[in-house]
Amino acid sequence: MKVRRSTRLVDMTIYFLKNPNTTTPLSYFTDKFKAAKSSISEDLAIIKNSFEETNMGSLITYAGARGGVQYQPYYHKAQLEKEILALKDEINGSERLLPGGYIFTSDLLGDPNWLKRIGRIIASKYSPGEVDAILTIATKGVPLAQSAAYNLNVPFYIVRKSTKVTEGSTVSINYLPWSSAEQVERMTLTRNTLKPESKVLIIDDFLRGGGTIMGMERMAEEFNCVVVDSIVLLEHTGEDTNTKTKSLLKVTDVNKENETIKVDVGNFLSL
Amino acid sequence: MKVRRSTRLVDMTIYFLKNPNTTTPLSYFTDKFKAAKSSISEDLAIIKNSFEETNMGSLITYAGARGGVQYQPYYHKAQLEKEILALKDEINGSERLLPGGYIFTSDLLGDPNWLKRIGRIIASKYSPGEVDAILTIATKGVPLAQSAAYNLNVPFYIVRKSTKVTEGSTVSINYLPWSSAEQVERMTLTRNTLKPESKVLIIDDFLRGGGTIMGMERMAEEFNCVVVDSIVLLEHTGEDTNTKTKSLLKVTDVNKENETIKVDVGNFLSL
Repeated sequence: MKVRRSTRLVDMTIYFLKNPNTTTPLSYFTDKFKAAKSSISEDLAIIKNSFEETNMGSLITYAGARGGVQYQPYYHKAQLEKEILALKDEINGSERLLPGGYIFTSDLLGDPNWLKRIGRIIASKYSPGEVDAILTIATKGVPLAQSAAYNLNVPFYIVRKSTKVTEGSTVSINYLPWSSAEQVERMTLTRNTLKPESKVLIIDDFLRGGGTIMGMERMAEEFNCVVVDSIVLLEHTGEDTNTKTKSLLKVTDVNKENETIKVDVGNFLSL
Repeated sequence: MKVRRSTRLVDMTIYFLKNPNTTTPLSYFTDKFKAAKSSISEDLAIIKNSFEETNMGSLITYAGARGGVQYQPYYHKAQLEKEILALKDEINGSERLLPGGYIFTSDLLGDPNWLKRIGRIIASKYSPGEVDAILTIATKGVPLAQSAAYNLNVPFYIVRKSTKVTEGSTVSINYLPWSSAEQVERMTLTRNTLKPESKVLIIDDFLRGGGTIMGMERMAEEFNCVVVDSIVLLEHTGEDTNTKTKSLLKVTDVNKENETIKVDVGNFLSL
């Protein structure tokens, strides 16, 4: 049965939002809606325009035999800056200083609306095919990894600090959690997860010294994978790191007397 | 500037999918699109119909001064059964038996497409306002909690088995991880998370004895909250539990000799 254009537009919009970073041949739509290719192309132009106007990303059309159309969720440059500034205000604007100079972020990391925005911020840096899998470490990296995975349409895998009987065979490595640490710790990943040769994006909630990120980089190598990038929500200052980790935000000042912090935009935008 | 109907339909569809379980007054749309109420109502009818036809849930209109329209993501009954059967086939269909009778699910819990479906399955049981917050326990409950939280548009909070310096003040309780356990364990939740009087949904990846779920129920009580329900992905048979936990799937047979398992539909649909 032929479908009215209005219904087709809504159905196609739903389809794209459900299937980000997935190439769909135009014939899928012409068959499904019993519509001419020219009509579908007009629909796609309307949807593309709306995605761009509402900061949802865009529709990209690929030519050729294996071509088709793909919804890519991202923020364009100006919106990306706005989103990171909004995140900065959210973290600066409330009482978040914890003893030891740590910053409280558990509320953000459990808020679906912030998580959706942060996931899209991270995804904005990568074109389809640039990342095959996301690696994170329990516990607070997980929500960030999941929200980025939703946008990039790739699986995410969780490195743990303890081995569980529910994991099956695992690979474990030793690492120094921070540069001046004296005690070596151990991280573990289930063997049957990361595929060899995967292009891996590492995501964690904070960076302080970089030992955990370096450990995850080594873990990815153990699985014969290539690390594309490592990204953290919040970089804590004061210690040099050897990694090229990208941070969305950076703690630039901790005033323990007044119990205030100052958080600035990290190097995510410039790197 | 007046907006064409086709653009309006796409923009409104995007808006609803971005803002599930959120009541928006009709005036928001008439203002935004400079359109008559009757036109917006026609649009809403088209979108509602598409949401229902594509198993995305529905649009619900509330009358009155604080009324408006709300997108509710859920599977209707027939689709809900299909989704749980698909999940059952996925788990039955592959080599998932681990030593000790545990089932390997790390792949599903890192797959954005399965997570989106499981989150919607769980959300299908609850009307807006029935759940204020989700409580889960690290690590493998987290992806399930997040996906349900995305659908229900409520925050989720993570109970941990260890205390971290990045958490701030916490509340800890002792619990017996399973009924015959001899060693008491300890679970911890950051104080500044669950609001008193919240209606809490507890989510975990598996149930075996029910001690962890009972611990989380006690934790919710410590925060003066009411537990609406507890839900697990997979129930392991063999031990009676005192809880009324709902399971999506249930392990009905573990054959250690042949290394096969049999998984059936849990009590989620019937309870």
